Amino acid sequence: MSCNSGARMGLAKEVMDVFCVSWEKNENPDLPKGVEYLYLTQQNYDELKDYVVCEKKTIGNETRYVLKAILGKEHGLSVENLSASGLIAGKTARAYQETFTLSYVTGRSVGIGAYLNRLSQRIIQKSGSPILLTGFQALNSLLGKKVYLSNLQLGGFGIMLPNGVSHLAVHDDLGGVEHIIKWLSYVPKTLHEISFPSTLNTINSDPIGREVTLEIKEGMQFDPRLMIAGGKVNNLHVEGLFDNGSFTETLSGWAKGIVVGRARLGGIPIGIIVVDTRSTTKIVPADPANKESVEQITEKAGKVWYSDSAFKTAQSIKDFNYENLSLFILANWRGFSGGASDMFDEVLKFGANIVDALLEYKQPIFVYIPPYSEVRGGAWVVIDSQINSEFIEMYASESARGGVLEPNAIVEFKYRKDMMIKTMRRLDPVLQRLIEEEQMPDVMIQIQRRQHLLHGIYKQIAIKFADLHDCPERLLAKNTIREIVPWKKSRNYFYWRLRYRLHLQKIYMQIKNISIKHLSQKIEDLVKHRLKNDVLSDYSIATWCDNNPKPLVSLINQIKQETILNKVVVLLKNFPDGFRNGIKFLQERLELD
Amino acid sequence: MSCNSGARMGLAKEVMDVFCVSWEKNENPDLPKGVEYLYLTQQNYDELKDYVVCEKKTIGNETRYVLKAILGKEHGLSVENLSASGLIAGKTARAYQETFTLSYVTGRSVGIGAYLNRLSQRIIQKSGSPILLTGFQALNSLLGKKVYLSNLQLGGFGIMLPNGVSHLAVHDDLGGVEHIIKWLSYVPKTLHEISFPSTLNTINSDPIGREVTLEIKEGMQFDPRLMIAGGKVNNLHVEGLFDNGSFTETLSGWAKGIVVGRARLGGIPIGIIVVDTRSTTKIVPADPANKESVEQITEKAGKVWYSDSAFKTAQSIKDFNYENLSLFILANWRGFSGGASDMFDEVLKFGANIVDALLEYKQPIFVYIPPYSEVRGGAWVVIDSQINSEFIEMYASESARGGVLEPNAIVEFKYRKDMMIKTMRRLDPVLQRLIEEEQMPDVMIQIQRRQHLLHGIYKQIAIKFADLHDCPERLLAKNTIREIVPWKKSRNYFYWRLRYRLHLQKIYMQIKNISIKHLSQKIEDLVKHRLKNDVLSDYSIATWCDNNPKPLVSLINQIKQETILNKVVVLLKNFPDGFRNGIKFLQERLELD
Repeated sequence: MSCNSGARMGLAKEVMDVFCVSWEKNENPDLPKGVEYLYLTQQNYDELKDYVVCEKKTIGNETRYVLKAILGKEHGLSVENLSASGLIAGKTARAYQETFTLSYVTGRSVGIGAYLNRLSQRIIQKSGSPILLTGFQALNSLLGKKVYLSNLQLGGFGIMLPNGVSHLAVHDDLGGVEHIIKWLSYVPKTLHEISFPSTLNTINSDPIGREVTLEIKEGMQFDPRLMIAGGKVNNLHVEGLFDNGSFTETLSGWAKGIVVGRARLGGIPIGIIVVDTRSTTKIVPADPANKESVEQITEKAGKVWYSDSAFKTAQSIKDFNYENLSLFILANWRGFSGGASDMFDEVLKFGANIVDALLEYKQPIFVYIPPYSEVRGGAWVVIDSQINSEFIEMYASESARGGVLEPNAIVEFKYRKDMMIKTMRRLDPVLQRLIEEEQMPDVMIQIQRRQHLLHGIYKQIAIKFADLHDCPERLLAKNTIREIVPWKKSRNYFYWRLRYRLHLQKIYMQIKNISIKHLSQKIEDLVKHRLKNDVLSDYSIATWCDNNPKPLVSLINQIKQETILNKVVVLLKNFPDGFRNGIKFLQERLELD
Repeated sequence: MSCNSGARMGLAKEVMDVFCVSWEKNENPDLPKGVEYLYLTQQNYDELKDYVVCEKKTIGNETRYVLKAILGKEHGLSVENLSASGLIAGKTARAYQETFTLSYVTGRSVGIGAYLNRLSQRIIQKSGSPILLTGFQALNSLLGKKVYLSNLQLGGFGIMLPNGVSHLAVHDDLGGVEHIIKWLSYVPKTLHEISFPSTLNTINSDPIGREVTLEIKEGMQFDPRLMIAGGKVNNLHVEGLFDNGSFTETLSGWAKGIVVGRARLGGIPIGIIVVDTRSTTKIVPADPANKESVEQITEKAGKVWYSDSAFKTAQSIKDFNYENLSLFILANWRGFSGGASDMFDEVLKFGANIVDALLEYKQPIFVYIPPYSEVRGGAWVVIDSQINSEFIEMYASESARGGVLEPNAIVEFKYRKDMMIKTMRRLDPVLQRLIEEEQMPDVMIQIQRRQHLLHGIYKQIAIKFADLHDCPERLLAKNTIREIVPWKKSRNYFYWRLRYRLHLQKIYMQIKNISIKHLSQKIEDLVKHRLKNDVLSDYSIATWCDNNPKPLVSLINQIKQETILNKVVVLLKNFPDGFRNGIKFLQERLELD
């Protein structure tokens, strides 16, 4: 919890009370004009010498100790506080990687306090509790005029929600504590675990086997949150892919074209990223320090990544990874926005960060293209399963699309006018008849007229033809998705797939550095052998693993032995005196044990 | 080298030439209005069945194969190219971490091509060679009007230099190759090495022992590049800390308040970050797609971190780390800019990234505060040596300052008016005389007048007093810097310190996971023992290491043995069947070898 006001500072009272001043020479001795130096007398120096650094100076028979630095009796007056803050900063940055960190800002959080919050990344902010670097009064005195009226102008909700520094906003401490507890409910107990409730626990809540009742139609404009955990559509309750009501959104004020948060699938907590197909608005507030600036509102198209939404995507992936959550991306992107202002706003940097974040992910990731959704060009490239093939699996619904360009754009290059005319001549009986009569007068004009008349419908045909190259069956045939999963059945499908992957994950987290593919092969061989069945499903493997902990443990131990031996052999091969000597030393150690 | 135009795409010619159309029912059979589906005849299907996905349909006695998807005879028509691009993207992102990556953009670099450049991070761009996501014509047709006139408007120098995507700009391929070779000259041969020329090689160039002749005076406004590798001041040549003329600046168009690049110290390549004390301008170009937007020019104060300059700092630290370069930061920051627009622009995120980048650094870092330079508050916190105490060392010049706030600001809180009056009454004879006469009429007014008169000079005294708390002697006494290094002598000092640290570094890179502090203790014990001298300097250790490779190697081997044994013991303690069994298995392996 955070209610801190930057680094402490102070001046050494014990020196302040006794120092002397050497004045610059001046005509009027009663009116000092300049200061030469500050000093201590012999007596004061004797008392304070441990707390000052002085240079001895003799003037006549007077001895002066010119002050070069004041250390102070009290520890903690200045730079030492900054250094300690540096220590905390480093440890906090490390902690974000090694455990679950969450800051609750319930008072003013200033300077290093604000930095510590950000270094812990996840922030819940209470209204009226600003996060800032410099207080508004200090800024006003720096600017020489009354620009700011409060600290909230600098780091209140109006700043910290739309820029994605604060992940959640609450209005009182009770709300704060509720959200902390709720957030913790998605997080495993330790870094070395994953949250993995047994099947039994969850059957009572939202059934795993039920269908997804939210119907998605072509061109439908709807709140993408409905896909996650259901909700009301025209006063009717519809159900989404994940457990009813299990979704907690974070960063909702920032880059609204992307919706992120945590939800549950059959009780298993997961991270989730979905795309808003509707256009959203971005508001850049006016800068109080610049009189000419005005609030700027820009419309952002749906299904397009911008700098800020790419940043939000990458940041969320990073957060989920450190929370040991499996990740679902319900993908639906036409691409990245590449206008001049987007390019200037570093869309390339933040888009590339998505690849970086996926590359580092060490938990299962399911990228799923929902009905009438598409992933095109650059957007596909940054989420493709080959970025991190051990952990990313891609899936498409029955009406999903994937490809380089949208069909109407491809047609411009690859189904050009001459090719379209060729198709017309092949398929249109009227045109064929005219062509046979080519020798007759005026026929050429009639042919052209006919072709002109047919242009619209053949453009449609060309687009349909191009679209057939982007269908899920092709995505599957080209091994770019793992399976076509119908939207209605997706909940049940992904639950069992996830459950199987989490069994692998539990083993992976014990052994590390092992290939998931290699591991799944071993598990599948074992299950096939035990079930005496060559056709396995995610369901059969997951339930077998659920119900047969003992053979599983002995398989794990066998793999562990192999892995450890391999590592030890590699280590000992680098042993300076040779492998055999290493073994000898080891045995000596053993005997000492 | 990069001259690529996004992912390839195409349509299946063999299907285009034969497909049939089922028309929607229509009153005028000669004028088709709608398309029901595309299909193949039995004969065409038989020929093409490996390249299509169809659904069989019988109408009367005609069999039709309705097209569900077109795979195409040719591989590489669409999504498979994206997936392969995803593979390259992931590998490129990994390569940035594992080796030296540099892109030279000498043609158009579009879409995934642009992303690959960014994923490799370091970019040299040739003029006239744009880096973009979507071509200007495609954008114009998307926007429905002629907004852009060329690709250079989207990703030419005007965009990619001020936003820090391109690190260097060149005007022709010869310049490009020259810069590639120059850049490579700073980089070690492999990831497992550091560039560490022997002393002899470098003596001929710029002498190590020479003084730094650039004189820095209080309040002096000057080009900070002079501190690095010297240059002309009033037509006279002055010399900086690093080798004359060895500096190559990168990212010079972006966030100009920070100057970054690579230089050499006695021939050893290093990364360098310095601060411009002068104010700089930031230009945000007008957005051609938004008629109301105009070019915005803002003045940025010197010695202050903004969002962009914090980003540039963090990014450069990351780059240098992956190049195995030691890093010098010539620090001079009053703090972070914390106005409303800076807070909105996520200064907290990018400032925190500096801590993250320093935390990950695995090469020596020297933070040095040059003459009349200062590091205050938050700026100190994010570069403090305790963030990564194994690698960061802080130093200050004789006239450097460090503390929470600047003295005139501290005085407002900690040397308030009542305390200042107390000092006056203690030190001013006139005031003392008046106070003795307090009973006399009008004396109170005279006292107040005198106090008013003295206010200015005592404010000066208070500021001087406060400033004494920020002097290098205090920084040293509080262990927040390692040593006070006079600017004139800094070249010689840092050369030998660096040379000693690099000897440690060479060992560290062989053994990994070993504490540098522990290692330096071992080396110092060895050198003391060999030289029979208890007082060592960086010079004596470094030269001993230079001249005594044999005893050094045997020390390294001894440490290596110890480290390997420790690791093996930890591994075997986790051996599922117990430590002793592990040893047995190992011996079996040995015998098989």
